[in-house]
Amino acid sequence: MLLDTEQLNRNIAEIQEKLDSGDIPAAVRIAARLSNRRLVDIISEAPKETALPFLEALGPVRSARVLSYLLEELAVELLQELNSEFVQEVFIEMEDDEIADIILHLPEDERDKYWALIPNEYKDDVEEIVTYEEESVGAYMEKDFLTGFKDDLVKDAIDMLSKARGEIDNTDYIYVINEDDKLLGVVSVQELAFAARNERLENIMTVKVHVARVNEPAIEAARLMKYRKFKLLPVLDLQDRLVGVMALHEAIDLLSEELAEDFVSISGASAEESYFTPPKDAIKMRLPWMAANVFLNLGAVAVISTFEDTIAQVAILAAFIPMITDMGGNVGIQALSVSIRSIALGEVQIDDVKRVLRKELSIGLINGLALGSLFAIIAYILQREPMIGLIAGIALGFNVIVAGVVGGTIPFLIKKIGKDPAMMTGPVLTTITDITGVTIYLGLSTIFLWQLLA
Amino acid sequence: MLLDTEQLNRNIAEIQEKLDSGDIPAAVRIAARLSNRRLVDIISEAPKETALPFLEALGPVRSARVLSYLLEELAVELLQELNSEFVQEVFIEMEDDEIADIILHLPEDERDKYWALIPNEYKDDVEEIVTYEEESVGAYMEKDFLTGFKDDLVKDAIDMLSKARGEIDNTDYIYVINEDDKLLGVVSVQELAFAARNERLENIMTVKVHVARVNEPAIEAARLMKYRKFKLLPVLDLQDRLVGVMALHEAIDLLSEELAEDFVSISGASAEESYFTPPKDAIKMRLPWMAANVFLNLGAVAVISTFEDTIAQVAILAAFIPMITDMGGNVGIQALSVSIRSIALGEVQIDDVKRVLRKELSIGLINGLALGSLFAIIAYILQREPMIGLIAGIALGFNVIVAGVVGGTIPFLIKKIGKDPAMMTGPVLTTITDITGVTIYLGLSTIFLWQLLA
Repeated sequence: MLLDTEQLNRNIAEIQEKLDSGDIPAAVRIAARLSNRRLVDIISEAPKETALPFLEALGPVRSARVLSYLLEELAVELLQELNSEFVQEVFIEMEDDEIADIILHLPEDERDKYWALIPNEYKDDVEEIVTYEEESVGAYMEKDFLTGFKDDLVKDAIDMLSKARGEIDNTDYIYVINEDDKLLGVVSVQELAFAARNERLENIMTVKVHVARVNEPAIEAARLMKYRKFKLLPVLDLQDRLVGVMALHEAIDLLSEELAEDFVSISGASAEESYFTPPKDAIKMRLPWMAANVFLNLGAVAVISTFEDTIAQVAILAAFIPMITDMGGNVGIQALSVSIRSIALGEVQIDDVKRVLRKELSIGLINGLALGSLFAIIAYILQREPMIGLIAGIALGFNVIVAGVVGGTIPFLIKKIGKDPAMMTGPVLTTITDITGVTIYLGLSTIFLWQLLA
Repeated sequence: MLLDTEQLNRNIAEIQEKLDSGDIPAAVRIAARLSNRRLVDIISEAPKETALPFLEALGPVRSARVLSYLLEELAVELLQELNSEFVQEVFIEMEDDEIADIILHLPEDERDKYWALIPNEYKDDVEEIVTYEEESVGAYMEKDFLTGFKDDLVKDAIDMLSKARGEIDNTDYIYVINEDDKLLGVVSVQELAFAARNERLENIMTVKVHVARVNEPAIEAARLMKYRKFKLLPVLDLQDRLVGVMALHEAIDLLSEELAEDFVSISGASAEESYFTPPKDAIKMRLPWMAANVFLNLGAVAVISTFEDTIAQVAILAAFIPMITDMGGNVGIQALSVSIRSIALGEVQIDDVKRVLRKELSIGLINGLALGSLFAIIAYILQREPMIGLIAGIALGFNVIVAGVVGGTIPFLIKKIGKDPAMMTGPVLTTITDITGVTIYLGLSTIFLWQLLA
């Protein structure tokens, strides 16, 4: 039986129908044919009134799987409305790292309440994970992995492996440790398959093992895993003891989040802000940057104030100001996005800034000429005033060149001094292009004012 | 021996030193201790004059690995300067999908020249991959995978696996096929390890197999793989024959690129544009959007023209126009980025637009009040004119509210009608906020003009 997407979607539609009509028992019966991951989809899209009784009817074992695959924020929202006895049963079925994830996503004043529901034998492990620094490997590692001793035989390892499947997620490798939990080597399942059943693990293990430390940034470990195509990375504590593993799916999520953060921070929004950030935190994250931006913008105010007399004489000049500043801002952000993308995806070295400069300069020249000419014609048609059209067109064209060059190269320059190339570059860039735009425009207008007044 | 990052970096620094001083043989000697992936780093950062002789000195086997791990654009740049005999030897050592990747990244007028260098026995497979549609599973699949027949024994499979290692990348699964290449089931290496050596594959294979089709969009297959944590996905042609596999690392790259494209297209830049896009193509991609934006901006021009008389009487009003439009644009893009991020990372359902609306409204109210007040005070200090300060502050505050609400909800609304939520939303949004900003500002100014002139 080949599982085509189509076939699966039929089952999902069926369940959704039953849920909509309130027939929970029927939904649970169909759910028996679906994987936990499919149920996650269904629960994510269902309204809470349906999701909650459906979870309870699925029972603690499946609910534990579904809740741990759900986005943490959503899982926590649901858990907070389930009754305590059920949550307790769910916790029994969860892994320690999954419980830790839930606890970390609870509001601080509710953590104690849920802490009491964790089975006592899990509390130590959960506490360990919870206490690691937020972005460290320790906070992302999983604590279920397989270990053996160097004198263990291949057949024992295979036995252990076959018992562990289903219970433990990370069964691609067996880590060989000594009595002090020090890591001596690693045996992959593939190697187990080839080896003679009576061979000792010591004789088939690989002793060159890449490791991460609990206190390292998790994103570094994730990059290493992606880059080297590792499925699993053993994690050592500061005493060199094996305490966990970092799984590839965790690495993939971390890398996606980081990529998104790079782009979000272009706009000066906090890299941490998401759909789930409460408004009061979002305000704290956005307001300071925007207040700073008010001061940045005083540059443009100052420039225009200088030309107050020009505007007083030819008021219509003001009409084209937003056109010139908006186009400069947009062209700049365009070039900026392309550069940030290339840096974030690792397509480019920092030293390539010269090539980017040449590229943006030639794009800017052509686009500036084209857009400037277009605008000159439009401005002339609107105002029947060839000089205003010409000046506005030149200012726009020139601003497009400046915006492209500055926008395209800024991320490289920021990266070169070792900072995050995306942070707040958008608002700073648009302020720069505002200032250059109005300076050129009103400057030219003032010089040629006698023409305009003629 | 635990491989800490530090230790490895020392070797890399050593090689770079040798390369800088032109001592290629010494660099090759140290390279013998480094993995191919590390060499990729070194080659990426080395200038071409050094990279080319270094590759030749490494020989075709290692060069083939290094070139196939390099970003395709860079690999092609290097290949084009290596001599034909060496390229021919390199192609012998490459996989068919790797050669196809190179061919696809060559300029069209050079493809024939390199086609002639491909070993004849590879040409059919390479041609097959090259001819699939650009974004389809067929174009991304790999053609090296393991197959067996249902009557094969576990011990034969293990034999095959142990011979294939090093030769073939994708050895996590053995696909069980019939004489017509139809897929019957799959056996993981783990299952091989547990099974009795004389068992037939038929008895241990899993028959529920997720598959992708050659003509499906590759990104869909990548999403499925990430979501279900698959390491490998078998690919069937339209006659249901097994013709390839999609590997997880390919899926991860596809997902990262897609995420980046979502964000880049906010700015109206083409999702396809990267650092390697030649300027003439970049112009073709950017110019039409920006020209369209000129016309969009005429809205703001029209509004300001309407208020020409007001500006003629109080020219200093013009000074605050860029401040109001720029702040609106930036706040809007901020809210937009956060929403696009949440949609792209799958944190949010489209129906959640109401929640976003409420969130942005409350953020906008507070931020609008704060920023508007700040600006009113600054404007007053600058102009000593309480009325201008008040009007500018109110306009800015109001524009911040509008910008946040429109920016935050636009991606949801576009997604709802089934379009790409990011495409060109940035320039459209800034035009909307330009228009609302100047309308409120100049409208209020006109109404209270008698105050300003008093």
